[in-house]
Amino acid sequence: MNAPEIARALSAAGDASPLIESYRAVRGLTTELCSPLAVEDYVIQSAPECSPAKWHLAHTTWFFENFLLAPLLPGYRPFHPQYGYLFNSYYETVGTFFPRPLRGLLSRPTVEDIYRYRAHVDDHIVELIQRLDPERDGDTVFRVTLGLHHEQQHQELLLTDVKNLLALSPLRPVYRPPSGVAKDRAAPLNWLDFPAGLHAIGSTGDEFAFDNETPRHRVFLDSFALASRPVTNGEYFDFIAAGGYRNASLWLSDGWRKVSEAGWQAPLYWEESDAKWWHMTLSGFQPVDPEAPVCHISYYEADAFARWAGKRLPTEFEWESAAATLAVEGNLLDSDELHPSAAANASHQFFGDVWEWTSSAYSPYPGFQPLAGSLGEYNGKFMVNQLVLRGGSCATPRSHLRATYRNFFYPPDRWQFMGLRLAR
Amino acid sequence: MNAPEIARALSAAGDASPLIESYRAVRGLTTELCSPLAVEDYVIQSAPECSPAKWHLAHTTWFFENFLLAPLLPGYRPFHPQYGYLFNSYYETVGTFFPRPLRGLLSRPTVEDIYRYRAHVDDHIVELIQRLDPERDGDTVFRVTLGLHHEQQHQELLLTDVKNLLALSPLRPVYRPPSGVAKDRAAPLNWLDFPAGLHAIGSTGDEFAFDNETPRHRVFLDSFALASRPVTNGEYFDFIAAGGYRNASLWLSDGWRKVSEAGWQAPLYWEESDAKWWHMTLSGFQPVDPEAPVCHISYYEADAFARWAGKRLPTEFEWESAAATLAVEGNLLDSDELHPSAAANASHQFFGDVWEWTSSAYSPYPGFQPLAGSLGEYNGKFMVNQLVLRGGSCATPRSHLRATYRNFFYPPDRWQFMGLRLAR
Amino acid sequence: MNAPEIARALSAAGDASPLIESYRAVRGLTTELCSPLAVEDYVIQSAPECSPAKWHLAHTTWFFENFLLAPLLPGYRPFHPQYGYLFNSYYETVGTFFPRPLRGLLSRPTVEDIYRYRAHVDDHIVELIQRLDPERDGDTVFRVTLGLHHEQQHQELLLTDVKNLLALSPLRPVYRPPSGVAKDRAAPLNWLDFPAGLHAIGSTGDEFAFDNETPRHRVFLDSFALASRPVTNGEYFDFIAAGGYRNASLWLSDGWRKVSEAGWQAPLYWEESDAKWWHMTLSGFQPVDPEAPVCHISYYEADAFARWAGKRLPTEFEWESAAATLAVEGNLLDSDELHPSAAANASHQFFGDVWEWTSSAYSPYPGFQPLAGSLGEYNGKFMVNQLVLRGGSCATPRSHLRATYRNFFYPPDRWQFMGLRLAR
Amino acid sequence: MNAPEIARALSAAGDASPLIESYRAVRGLTTELCSPLAVEDYVIQSAPECSPAKWHLAHTTWFFENFLLAPLLPGYRPFHPQYGYLFNSYYETVGTFFPRPLRGLLSRPTVEDIYRYRAHVDDHIVELIQRLDPERDGDTVFRVTLGLHHEQQHQELLLTDVKNLLALSPLRPVYRPPSGVAKDRAAPLNWLDFPAGLHAIGSTGDEFAFDNETPRHRVFLDSFALASRPVTNGEYFDFIAAGGYRNASLWLSDGWRKVSEAGWQAPLYWEESDAKWWHMTLSGFQPVDPEAPVCHISYYEADAFARWAGKRLPTEFEWESAAATLAVEGNLLDSDELHPSAAANASHQFFGDVWEWTSSAYSPYPGFQPLAGSLGEYNGKFMVNQLVLRGGSCATPRSHLRATYRNFFYPPDRWQFMGLRLAR
Repeated sequence: MNAPEIARALSAAGDASPLIESYRAVRGLTTELCSPLAVEDYVIQSAPECSPAKWHLAHTTWFFENFLLAPLLPGYRPFHPQYGYLFNSYYETVGTFFPRPLRGLLSRPTVEDIYRYRAHVDDHIVELIQRLDPERDGDTVFRVTLGLHHEQQHQELLLTDVKNLLALSPLRPVYRPPSGVAKDRAAPLNWLDFPAGLHAIGSTGDEFAFDNETPRHRVFLDSFALASRPVTNGEYFDFIAAGGYRNASLWLSDGWRKVSEAGWQAPLYWEESDAKWWHMTLSGFQPVDPEAPVCHISYYEADAFARWAGKRLPTEFEWESAAATLAVEGNLLDSDELHPSAAANASHQFFGDVWEWTSSAYSPYPGFQPLAGSLGEYNGKFMVNQLVLRGGSCATPRSHLRATYRNFFYPPDRWQFMGLRLAR
Repeated sequence: MNAPEIARALSAAGDASPLIESYRAVRGLTTELCSPLAVEDYVIQSAPECSPAKWHLAHTTWFFENFLLAPLLPGYRPFHPQYGYLFNSYYETVGTFFPRPLRGLLSRPTVEDIYRYRAHVDDHIVELIQRLDPERDGDTVFRVTLGLHHEQQHQELLLTDVKNLLALSPLRPVYRPPSGVAKDRAAPLNWLDFPAGLHAIGSTGDEFAFDNETPRHRVFLDSFALASRPVTNGEYFDFIAAGGYRNASLWLSDGWRKVSEAGWQAPLYWEESDAKWWHMTLSGFQPVDPEAPVCHISYYEADAFARWAGKRLPTEFEWESAAATLAVEGNLLDSDELHPSAAANASHQFFGDVWEWTSSAYSPYPGFQPLAGSLGEYNGKFMVNQLVLRGGSCATPRSHLRATYRNFFYPPDRWQFMGLRLAR
Repeated sequence: MNAPEIARALSAAGDASPLIESYRAVRGLTTELCSPLAVEDYVIQSAPECSPAKWHLAHTTWFFENFLLAPLLPGYRPFHPQYGYLFNSYYETVGTFFPRPLRGLLSRPTVEDIYRYRAHVDDHIVELIQRLDPERDGDTVFRVTLGLHHEQQHQELLLTDVKNLLALSPLRPVYRPPSGVAKDRAAPLNWLDFPAGLHAIGSTGDEFAFDNETPRHRVFLDSFALASRPVTNGEYFDFIAAGGYRNASLWLSDGWRKVSEAGWQAPLYWEESDAKWWHMTLSGFQPVDPEAPVCHISYYEADAFARWAGKRLPTEFEWESAAATLAVEGNLLDSDELHPSAAANASHQFFGDVWEWTSSAYSPYPGFQPLAGSLGEYNGKFMVNQLVLRGGSCATPRSHLRATYRNFFYPPDRWQFMGLRLAR
Repeated sequence: MNAPEIARALSAAGDASPLIESYRAVRGLTTELCSPLAVEDYVIQSAPECSPAKWHLAHTTWFFENFLLAPLLPGYRPFHPQYGYLFNSYYETVGTFFPRPLRGLLSRPTVEDIYRYRAHVDDHIVELIQRLDPERDGDTVFRVTLGLHHEQQHQELLLTDVKNLLALSPLRPVYRPPSGVAKDRAAPLNWLDFPAGLHAIGSTGDEFAFDNETPRHRVFLDSFALASRPVTNGEYFDFIAAGGYRNASLWLSDGWRKVSEAGWQAPLYWEESDAKWWHMTLSGFQPVDPEAPVCHISYYEADAFARWAGKRLPTEFEWESAAATLAVEGNLLDSDELHPSAAANASHQFFGDVWEWTSSAYSPYPGFQPLAGSLGEYNGKFMVNQLVLRGGSCATPRSHLRATYRNFFYPPDRWQFMGLRLAR
């Protein structure tokens, strides 16, 4: 589902049904992802960088209300006069907003209230789409499409935030039982070689892309090689066993400070028990599978591992040029495993399993222009202090991903499904 | 309901029914106080000093399980192996416990789980009481009684914590609609005079008392006078209007620092709107009634007000000697107003409405001995850095209160129903 | 030296010479205490509760300038227009002041500048005293006397702050070589018994006293007993060896939190080396003498030790009634040891060696009135959150001390010469 | 002075005199820069990112002792056994070190001690150089050269740290009187255009360079234009007057949070007085000259200004390709103004006045290899979370600078002489 495709479909069919279908499918998946949750699970903000599940449900809804219904549906009145204040995430030009670190302090509106809010907005969005004139309303189609990609981003965040919450409980709650899919062995590690040259980077504009993937531009790359799969837990065991977390010379200075202050000795959610590593997963407390890609590591850990291995992290440009022509397939949200796993695939696991840290700072591409108006705050204002990750994870919807996609997080972040692929 | 009375009742009736009746009444009131809550309201810890409602429900239950069922009911097995860890509040000698500031990060056990826990423990406590031999089991009767007083303390905390939570929401939720009782005017301010002399302070042992009210001992008091009622909101308006919050010379040094850092300009929950003071109550956002006792002020504010008024706060000994023979009646939890109000009464509002800050540090009485064993941690270990408040509030059960009762909080605390009475 | 005595001397001699003599002696001692310091030692604020030596030198000088020269010496102009802002400690009613935690960030004025400031003010104070009319100028005499007691307080603080600073350096600098006085053994521990009764507490007014020692009033005390000497390091070794710092049941709740967070395992400045305790002293790094009074412990530690020993701390009233008639003599600043030591003396070491923590909160005496005007901020506004210590230390000038003297610090404070005496 | 040149000189002359001369010149300049300081000025750490002047003096000396004398001068014994611990800055592989934020808590060693340390090390370095065999000892020559560049970096830091300290004092101390050089008007703003193409970036190896300037590699750049001079204070006045500090839409998200939390309303050291901007300089409190380059701004401010101006910041590659062939001349430390100033010059002020923020994250160049051994910690481990600045400032020695030089600081840092040049 992407804006140009939809626009074409609209023109062809003479009605908006494909877009409505997409809308219902994406919005419905969000609800489905919440089905294992108790009401209590919707409420809590387990860390400042996380949000309560009910906040995700409301914020994504507000996005449609604020950027579509309010300006574009004649006569629309907001569902509740305070929801704009409560569920605006960070759009300064839209108005003031409730402080992010306090999102977990609101018991009201209740979960039920928020589902009512969703239904109300859904009804009106469908009405809006039905009124669309495909010739003239390209911008509206684009905004619906953007809203759905936005919703998909929050589907992944919802899962990682729920995981973070459940992992805090000594009761070790299970979000969903293990899928029962038989576990593969990791593919052998090969090196994929790429010659030096000028490469075109960024979106071609043929499918939906965020503004941060534009404009397409040229980058010169020296010859390089990338590993044929991500680093595995088994390889990471060796790093730990070799004293990786105690050896300052492997770490960036800021990373070493973080390791020391936070007392990190393993990836997030890992615990040693009877000389064996276990970790919390969305299917509860499980042994760490040595064959699966290592996950829930910060940039600092990815970088230290690479240094220890005598290799380095790829740049985002190396990664994109290597992945540009590969099919977007792998262990994504659609496979419903909700955890990285070993799997030889034709795309070398470039897509799915874990977001792969690159060594590239999240910066604007040359000539970058953010979207006009308040939507310009979507991506551009975060272009400092963060690093780019590529490739999607086991919690990313397949239809949300592409080779040019740039995800970005702060170097110490670990709660996303984050891992690494070596370069040299 | 107090231990000696109950013991007498047991002897007389030959069965345990009065104690069971008390048990069911007190435990049932807790549940009733929760009836206006949505599931979401049970989960959140709105401030480090507050606890989620569901934690109160579980902790009070654990108290009975740990101090009665586990040691005294043959064959009893704990409801859940982790609940001891999760719901022990601070009894170091019982075992480790979940960190207090993180109580709001647990979505599981759910509210429903905890009500099951309560039912389970209630059944076994009734069984335990039914087996009691009144001749030999005085200690068990005492422990049940203590557990019920403990539950009553948490009834008040539950209400003040729920109020704190609801007050955070811009939606201004209502816990319960206003009682509709017609509002009185405040009684005129008179001075009650007391001559110098030696006074006996502390529990006589005739009714249930906490260990911190013992031993009864003599204190010499110079002649003094106490106001015939607490300070009203109207009087506090004058303090604010006179610049009380901006005049350093009225404040204790630590108080002035707190005022400056926290930016206090009025009692907790107050907001100025259209040149009028409003505040959040358990019945939602309401105008501040000038005739009612001022409430939700810290010790620092109570002390500054008294200095501004050219008076002082009473000591806890002055307070107790003045109130010793008064009937325990007034605007208590039983009157179901859930807010302080103006009311001329024969007990000069010594009881109910607001806990009255005294100038007395919370210290052990001469010869104080805490209870034996882990119950010794109940009160004694808090005897530093806190100040004594007397008289109960609109959220205190009448059967929980007495003239010798010593409540204690830190000087900056404001979220309890706290006010003051002047002395000179 | 005290105000009434001085006033009598003035009347008798017809001139101000004794007061000038006292002034020169006290001010000169401050300078003498600084003689071992390098310029660098004057500058640093080693902890938020400490002040740089040069700040002490300037602040005590400002006290005379602000409370005497400015209002009382005709035509006096302040030495520097900014010094009032820089060297006012906390007198809100005098004007704004430089933030206390930043006192160590000022390299200018230099040490030399500040000695010039002292000389300038000294000259003018002498001039002021010479002009005194003993009949009419009692208030001025009182203020000079107060200024000198104030200076003496800062002499002790200067020493404890210098000790705190030097103790931070891995070079273990020596303020002054050991006195070489032969070390005594501790006196055997006896119990001094006192009968129940009403006692008069507080200053009689016959000699200089701070306002916080007034008014004299009656307190009823039950019979009690006090140890005949402070607790020794040897006794404290036993507390440590018995796991005192690891046993939560010995501690006040706030104390246990502090122990846990700060990782305390012994008194301040102690280090274990080769299974032996050493500590920093003003004479450098030395073995801890088991016979000397234990020192540099917080209230929490004093209280925990007493609980472990099956005893308790005395109240300040018990202490004062026991010490009221004893001679003020012992290991004080005048003995120039600058460290507590074992010494049988007729005053049972009630005076000198270590300030003794009492269990009494620092509160106003009944009927307390602070001094008029800005000097009222001297003591009164600190009467919350602190505890009273009695008896002076090895860093207290003898002429500064008396049985009614109330020192006060926060429960976690340790950098003063603080110890304890047991009661039962 | 650079390593290859020196090596050539050594070969030619048959003795080490040019290197000794360089050594004495650079080391002597450090001492000269300290000549205006009072002893007190050497001691204080005015902010966590600053160091006391005496620490700079000692640390640069330790660098020579640790990396040259200890390993290379037979029989050399360290001046003091603890100085390695005290004056190692961050070399984890050398050993533990005194915590950076506490550098201002050490009064000992004294300033005099440290000058003795410098003299001792200087004598031995000269001895070491005199023994050099230019054929075989290239590495030693390199290390001396590196040590001198290191010393020059600290000369600049020493000045910026002294400025930071003196700016804290309400006395507004003057480090050195104004130079008295007549002030120019700013050059008119033109745009220098550069065509698209592949550019070689990084050191050619012909002169001394840090490892972070290597390896030289190719970068593709689209066509771009750079301003012909840095942004001036006058232009920055307009940004402030237009509400730049209050308009969230101009700021990066992290920048806006910083502005809000820190309350920034102007560059560091600026104060408004009588509707005019003043600022602290090394010559005391002065009016802000509208013609001079704006200085002491963070990356966030530079970026917000550029957005407000409808322009952007250059990348470090654009900057370097533009400056590659320009002469290194301008208002550098050698011109002794110690403040940025307006000056039309042939190098378009690319060098000197202010370090220019670029939009480039400080990352390793493709194929980057840090120096071997502990010296590998010099630069490489800081390659995350910082941004590159180019061009040197009024506090950079001319002989220390080159077009390929990469300086790096955190986005909120402001205390260096930092400004910006626009790009488009």
